[in-house]
Amino acid sequence: MTIIDIIEKKKRKEELSLEEISFFIKGMLDKSIADYQVSSLLMAIVLNGMTDKETMYLTKQMIDSGQIIDLSEVKGPIVDKHSTGGVGDKVTLILGPLLASMGIKMAKMSGRGLGHTGGTIDKLEAISGYNVELTRENFIKQVNEIGIAIISQSGNIVPADKKLYALRDVTGTVDSIPLIASSIMSKKIASGADVIFIDVKVGNGALMKDIESAKKLANLMIEIGKYFNKTVICFLTNMDEPLGCAIGNALEVQEAIDCLHGIGPLDVMELIIKIAGIIVHKVNKIELEEAETLCLKKINNGEAYEKFVQLVNAQHGDLTKLPKAEHVVSVKALQTGYIKSINALQLGEIARLIGAGRLTKEDTIDYAVGLVLTHKVGDYVEKGDELLKVYLNKKDVKTEDILACFEIVPNKVHKKSLIYEILK
Amino acid sequence: MTIIDIIEKKKRKEELSLEEISFFIKGMLDKSIADYQVSSLLMAIVLNGMTDKETMYLTKQMIDSGQIIDLSEVKGPIVDKHSTGGVGDKVTLILGPLLASMGIKMAKMSGRGLGHTGGTIDKLEAISGYNVELTRENFIKQVNEIGIAIISQSGNIVPADKKLYALRDVTGTVDSIPLIASSIMSKKIASGADVIFIDVKVGNGALMKDIESAKKLANLMIEIGKYFNKTVICFLTNMDEPLGCAIGNALEVQEAIDCLHGIGPLDVMELIIKIAGIIVHKVNKIELEEAETLCLKKINNGEAYEKFVQLVNAQHGDLTKLPKAEHVVSVKALQTGYIKSINALQLGEIARLIGAGRLTKEDTIDYAVGLVLTHKVGDYVEKGDELLKVYLNKKDVKTEDILACFEIVPNKVHKKSLIYEILK
Repeated sequence: MTIIDIIEKKKRKEELSLEEISFFIKGMLDKSIADYQVSSLLMAIVLNGMTDKETMYLTKQMIDSGQIIDLSEVKGPIVDKHSTGGVGDKVTLILGPLLASMGIKMAKMSGRGLGHTGGTIDKLEAISGYNVELTRENFIKQVNEIGIAIISQSGNIVPADKKLYALRDVTGTVDSIPLIASSIMSKKIASGADVIFIDVKVGNGALMKDIESAKKLANLMIEIGKYFNKTVICFLTNMDEPLGCAIGNALEVQEAIDCLHGIGPLDVMELIIKIAGIIVHKVNKIELEEAETLCLKKINNGEAYEKFVQLVNAQHGDLTKLPKAEHVVSVKALQTGYIKSINALQLGEIARLIGAGRLTKEDTIDYAVGLVLTHKVGDYVEKGDELLKVYLNKKDVKTEDILACFEIVPNKVHKKSLIYEILK
Repeated sequence: MTIIDIIEKKKRKEELSLEEISFFIKGMLDKSIADYQVSSLLMAIVLNGMTDKETMYLTKQMIDSGQIIDLSEVKGPIVDKHSTGGVGDKVTLILGPLLASMGIKMAKMSGRGLGHTGGTIDKLEAISGYNVELTRENFIKQVNEIGIAIISQSGNIVPADKKLYALRDVTGTVDSIPLIASSIMSKKIASGADVIFIDVKVGNGALMKDIESAKKLANLMIEIGKYFNKTVICFLTNMDEPLGCAIGNALEVQEAIDCLHGIGPLDVMELIIKIAGIIVHKVNKIELEEAETLCLKKINNGEAYEKFVQLVNAQHGDLTKLPKAEHVVSVKALQTGYIKSINALQLGEIARLIGAGRLTKEDTIDYAVGLVLTHKVGDYVEKGDELLKVYLNKKDVKTEDILACFEIVPNKVHKKSLIYEILK
């Protein structure tokens, strides 16, 4: 078997065997297969596709390329979540404590972010003192004791994905549904959870440009889940505006706290109840409506927030010391009308530029800075009304760049629903 | 403009512009584009194709990547030839002198061979003393004086092709008609000839597996020729058996001499008359039949051979000293019947193993060794009749491997014609 034979086979649109996919992944990692051979095969996969069988094989080989987290010592069901990339997405910070307050555990290893804002770990590090590094023993102990732990990804989970993703990123081979599905699912499966929730963003700036391909991706991930005996739930959600109002690490933590108090932005609240509801429905085998009611109750009676406080305390964070930016700039509408869209990616990029995110691993994040929307899509604004607040420290911001993110039209707009579809 | 944009564009099957193709070739050569990006684009080209326009642009950029041979000081029409890879192909050694004897010049830079047997340069070096390196001045002078010079490729002709070909070879991206056409044509055009003859081999072991794709390749090369104001003539020829009887450097020189005396194998004789005929017909604007008769006459009256002797003498070769192998092994048929096919590639590989060719640039060639067929496809042989002779020095040969190259059947076989089609 040679890598050239394998490339030629995929070029002819034939199905690769388990042995061939294993040869490919192993050779890529031990460098007996050169990067230019890997990228040639990747392009052949992008253009000629992969069967479901090949995707399962690839996912399996990727999982087996590294460490598999053993959570068997955690009692009860464990949930994990993933989003394909949202601006202002603070769902993990809210969903985890809410589920834990109902006995569904979250033993989450999360990453730092590259791009618009930080990842979940960066957001948690905005809380002074929060320790993202626990030993395996303490991690398991904390999950068993309070139902939740969120730590930084350590060890060597799916090294094949790291390598593949780095190459795909620079060779025009990102947009392949089987490659995306196996990348996401290999990491989630290797992380050891039983129930995996995935938020597939759909829209212009998202990985999936249309509902049809987002649906294909979601269905494929659900199939992979079945193959590995995991419950997978996918939402397709729209990206016509940022999720919630806050973009930026400490600002998002504050918004998560508001949500846990039941007073967060409506879209985040809706999404959280829908996600938590369906998970509780699946895991606890109760009616969906009943599950959603239970989730609302756990927010309203303070138990969800209490769980968040327990999480932060257990990991030595101090919620009284959330960093605050020195300057606040109010950006005001230049015209009267209805907000038709708010370019989430572009706002994310502006947040990054003022320090809320990093472009390279070496960049440092300013946890305090960011943006907070005063209005969302569908709102009516008059000229001079505030559209958003910019929280700034050292760096400057161009208000015209921010204004360019808002599309304001004279007529009332029909606001698309946040959740397009739920697949499970 | 980034290479990722270009890859994405070709992935979407869009036409690349001249600027994009230029960016790609320049970036590949100055290494601002990584090999893994080049190979990803190559696979996208293999699978999504290139328009004729793109192929012209690519050929132009490849030509411009290196030195262009200026043959303007040579008086009269200059012909060049190329074969897509034949076993036993000694056509250049016969065609060049034959054409030169009729005033059509050959100023040929040729390569050394990798694989079954040597290239034209290796074959000429089998002639003791033959000097393959002439200065530019002497090269031009010799062509003007005797009408022919064959030297080793020097300088930096189409470096982009060297680089591209090396990558295509190891990334499963060889079989693309636009890539093959631009690779062949860029080198031929940069070499400065006016009339380019190309022998496209068709068959199982050949680059083109079927007549249809061979025809596509030939037509595309003819189109490229028009674009660069060159006359291109293509033959599609079959590869069901080696060309002629001899495989191996000195053995092929001897067969070429036989052909120039008019007593070579029928298939080589036929091919030579057809190729030379059509070139004379095109260049001298005389009827094809008349041209073929003229070619035959130049062989029969010894002028073609005389030109070959002039060539060898001018480059200091000594034809009285062709190397001879120490041992001759006769391989005999194990059954009675008709020869249906002779596996050319496999015989070529056997010739290489006994020393007639090289696998890496560092291997040395034994000019004396090789194989000479006693029988060709269509012949009737009885058990015990000689099929071929093996000329050996140090290395051994397995006769069963040779016998496996012959398919002998009980019934008379219909011999396919050597030349499938002529395109111009």
